[in-house]
Amino acid sequence: MAAHPLDSLFHPRAIAIVGVSASEGARRSAFLGGLLDQQYQERHPLYLVHPRASEIQGVRCYPTVLDCLGPVDHVISSIPRVGVDALVEQCIAKGVRSLHLFTAGFSEAGDAESADAERAVIAMARASGIRVIGPNCLGLYVPSERIAFAPNQPKEIGTVFGLSQSGVNAIEMLQLAERGPRFSKLVSFGNGADIDAAQLLDYAAEDPDSVLVVAYLEGAGRGRELFAALKRCAAVKPVIVLKGGITATGARAAQSHTGSLAGSGAVFEALCRQTGAMLVDDMEELHDLAVAVSSGLRHVQGGRGILLGTGGGFSVLSADSIARQGLDLPELSEATRTALREYIPVAGNSTRNPIDATFLGGERLEIPEQVIALCARAPGFDLLFTSAEGPPPPDAAGGRPEERAEDRRPGAPDPDAEARAMARAERARSAAVYFGALQAESGRPLAVIRRGRDPVSTRIFFEQAYQHGVAAFPTVLRAARVVARLLRWRASREGLPPLF
Amino acid sequence: MAAHPLDSLFHPRAIAIVGVSASEGARRSAFLGGLLDQQYQERHPLYLVHPRASEIQGVRCYPTVLDCLGPVDHVISSIPRVGVDALVEQCIAKGVRSLHLFTAGFSEAGDAESADAERAVIAMARASGIRVIGPNCLGLYVPSERIAFAPNQPKEIGTVFGLSQSGVNAIEMLQLAERGPRFSKLVSFGNGADIDAAQLLDYAAEDPDSVLVVAYLEGAGRGRELFAALKRCAAVKPVIVLKGGITATGARAAQSHTGSLAGSGAVFEALCRQTGAMLVDDMEELHDLAVAVSSGLRHVQGGRGILLGTGGGFSVLSADSIARQGLDLPELSEATRTALREYIPVAGNSTRNPIDATFLGGERLEIPEQVIALCARAPGFDLLFTSAEGPPPPDAAGGRPEERAEDRRPGAPDPDAEARAMARAERARSAAVYFGALQAESGRPLAVIRRGRDPVSTRIFFEQAYQHGVAAFPTVLRAARVVARLLRWRASREGLPPLF
Repeated sequence: MAAHPLDSLFHPRAIAIVGVSASEGARRSAFLGGLLDQQYQERHPLYLVHPRASEIQGVRCYPTVLDCLGPVDHVISSIPRVGVDALVEQCIAKGVRSLHLFTAGFSEAGDAESADAERAVIAMARASGIRVIGPNCLGLYVPSERIAFAPNQPKEIGTVFGLSQSGVNAIEMLQLAERGPRFSKLVSFGNGADIDAAQLLDYAAEDPDSVLVVAYLEGAGRGRELFAALKRCAAVKPVIVLKGGITATGARAAQSHTGSLAGSGAVFEALCRQTGAMLVDDMEELHDLAVAVSSGLRHVQGGRGILLGTGGGFSVLSADSIARQGLDLPELSEATRTALREYIPVAGNSTRNPIDATFLGGERLEIPEQVIALCARAPGFDLLFTSAEGPPPPDAAGGRPEERAEDRRPGAPDPDAEARAMARAERARSAAVYFGALQAESGRPLAVIRRGRDPVSTRIFFEQAYQHGVAAFPTVLRAARVVARLLRWRASREGLPPLF
Repeated sequence: MAAHPLDSLFHPRAIAIVGVSASEGARRSAFLGGLLDQQYQERHPLYLVHPRASEIQGVRCYPTVLDCLGPVDHVISSIPRVGVDALVEQCIAKGVRSLHLFTAGFSEAGDAESADAERAVIAMARASGIRVIGPNCLGLYVPSERIAFAPNQPKEIGTVFGLSQSGVNAIEMLQLAERGPRFSKLVSFGNGADIDAAQLLDYAAEDPDSVLVVAYLEGAGRGRELFAALKRCAAVKPVIVLKGGITATGARAAQSHTGSLAGSGAVFEALCRQTGAMLVDDMEELHDLAVAVSSGLRHVQGGRGILLGTGGGFSVLSADSIARQGLDLPELSEATRTALREYIPVAGNSTRNPIDATFLGGERLEIPEQVIALCARAPGFDLLFTSAEGPPPPDAAGGRPEERAEDRRPGAPDPDAEARAMARAERARSAAVYFGALQAESGRPLAVIRRGRDPVSTRIFFEQAYQHGVAAFPTVLRAARVVARLLRWRASREGLPPLF
């Protein structure tokens, strides 16, 4: 099979950045910082183009693209718009394959002259076979090729393909890594004057390194091609779409941002429904749905849930949240309740549904393993919402470091801080492993709620839950919202073959 | 004016806790820990009642309440239900004024016998003039009297009166402190078998130490009294109500939790509308609305907003969020746009509305002061949504510690960490002060969005914003939701005198 026309875009064998300031104390180029952070230079040559400087941050500079010592596949432009024509000429002469225009001031400025300038630049580049990303965007994040938008972005190679018409929202997408999933490729494509959403979705459909696609779109230009690409892609992998400018107010903002004519929300909803894509309301839901379809929760078939292990009034509000999303918490059967009563004290607790098997007092709200297992196997339910605590560790009767710590007098020194942190991390890890095994054995989709205030062990829990195929969420509401979204999406796919 | 009948409840001159386990390694009493943490003993005597132990955690134990050396005003019971009758007899003999039953297993258990037992206990106590909090609750948090539910709860004395039928949700309410507002008094009253929501609201109405009331309710028992107390209280101070069990699913959960018959959501909505109370959907909104009514944002008169200072695609999604809440971002006048253009480069930015005066690249998205001031004074708008960055500090041109830090090579040691943290804290503080002065001078209500990932400086910003009368929120959506809620509440108060 021939490579996709866009394939070489993601494998540049040398990169040059044009427009990095050499002046001390000025804001450094995020692109240069990103490539240095990812150690791109260990793989391929990295050049800087600067009219006077000889080196910036240890990277050698050349006066023009043509002066770079070897071939250059990909050029990143941070220069003002006025210099772009000359840069394109250099790129043509150098045999550059792709040009990323961080440079803004083209069609998104909203005037005819700027739009004409954009068309002229794209036409000149395309006539010589140069593909353009942008203008007005962050370009490429490809961790397998050690390319990032900026420093301190994940180096792990994942399986999510992302495309975003907005740079800020591309960076927001990257936060998905904190929930577990990482990206194979993420393209911030701005105005999309050459490479656009339709082409990127077409590529994503056949990219073997990507099993899930997330997209932030503003315009719906080239509607026919977008429809075809969405349909092709959504037929083979989940495609989650967040549409900016879906309200009239947002649409005006989108026009200022990327020059997109947003079209109506209803049209876009129909587009997603007909192609099988999953349309979400906001970035949080995009993250939550990406987590859900990367886990056993993607198999959820209905809205009959069990809610386990959160306390009294919190359970009441959680039940309201679940019901508001159109899901239900039906009562457990008498047989299950009888079995549960062996492990749950009656006083102040409940064996109906929600099930309160915890007791008040801090973060350690452990649940007897038998209770969790009974809930995972109770007949007549579609999924289990459970708090992330998991069963108590084997040595719970003795004083664990995390337990002893609460006995400290306030203000007293805390010699056990490190031991407690390690114990919390280990608890998070073992709970995630436990839930992974439980879901695999019981076949019941899990939605695990981790509200922990400790960021380190919470991060570990999300990572490990993802690794073990378990969907974890920071709140019950977000879990319930995404389950309802999955169910509506499944119901709306009539006529399309099932994806999972 | 005579003291309110409940007043002495909040000023116990000696406390005894019954039911603290003496065994090593067992879960310690949160109540004992809370009183020790608040140093209640420096103010008044604290006794423990234990059949055998002579002291626990340094606090002397007595075999019965009667044996305590001095008078006891308030007794906290953690013993099992079976011992409560005998305890009440001791309390009567000792002349105790109030009894807090953490003890559960009464009416919330759902059977007739347990409900009868509850009635009997309450009748016995009341016949001797003892008021009862509970059963099945956390009781009192009164920082001015050094009383808390558990260790590590705020010691600062605030002006919010809280009542919660759920202990867990009382603790959730306390998280409001992280946004600035603290509590004068917070009562977790569980089943409310004696002291109930109506009595607490009646007290809150005339409590001079409380300017704002937040309530978590499950049941709507004694409906006539509840209506009267809500109306009385909401006439003189804002009353924010979160109702658990507002859906059928949640109502069943509420019945298991506190034995409450929840009634329908529609009835409760009418109750709030007619009394002038503010009904919210969830705990997040309770916090957000408490922040809003504690700030200049409470004066917002309409939904015409300006959105300032967030980047491109983020602005688009923010505009969608704002519009979905029924608010609007009308275009700025040509005069204002002309004035703004002096400070905002055209390329990639916008002087319409939303206004994008920032540039990409990390956390430091500063906005020229003139831009913020123009937006605060532009005619024809009701409020300003703005990112929390504020104007750049005077020395921004030079390399500040926080700026230099980004240039570090990854993995390199960071000698400036402390300086950077201090710089971030100082930036947060000065931005909050700036916004406070701006709101006071311009008279335009502000909703400031602080999405910072750094918890320390974010906490400082929220605290300082609150101190300077500025409402700050973690997301645009939450800010927009609470503004819409305030406007709907204001519109629904027809016939009631304005509160602010």
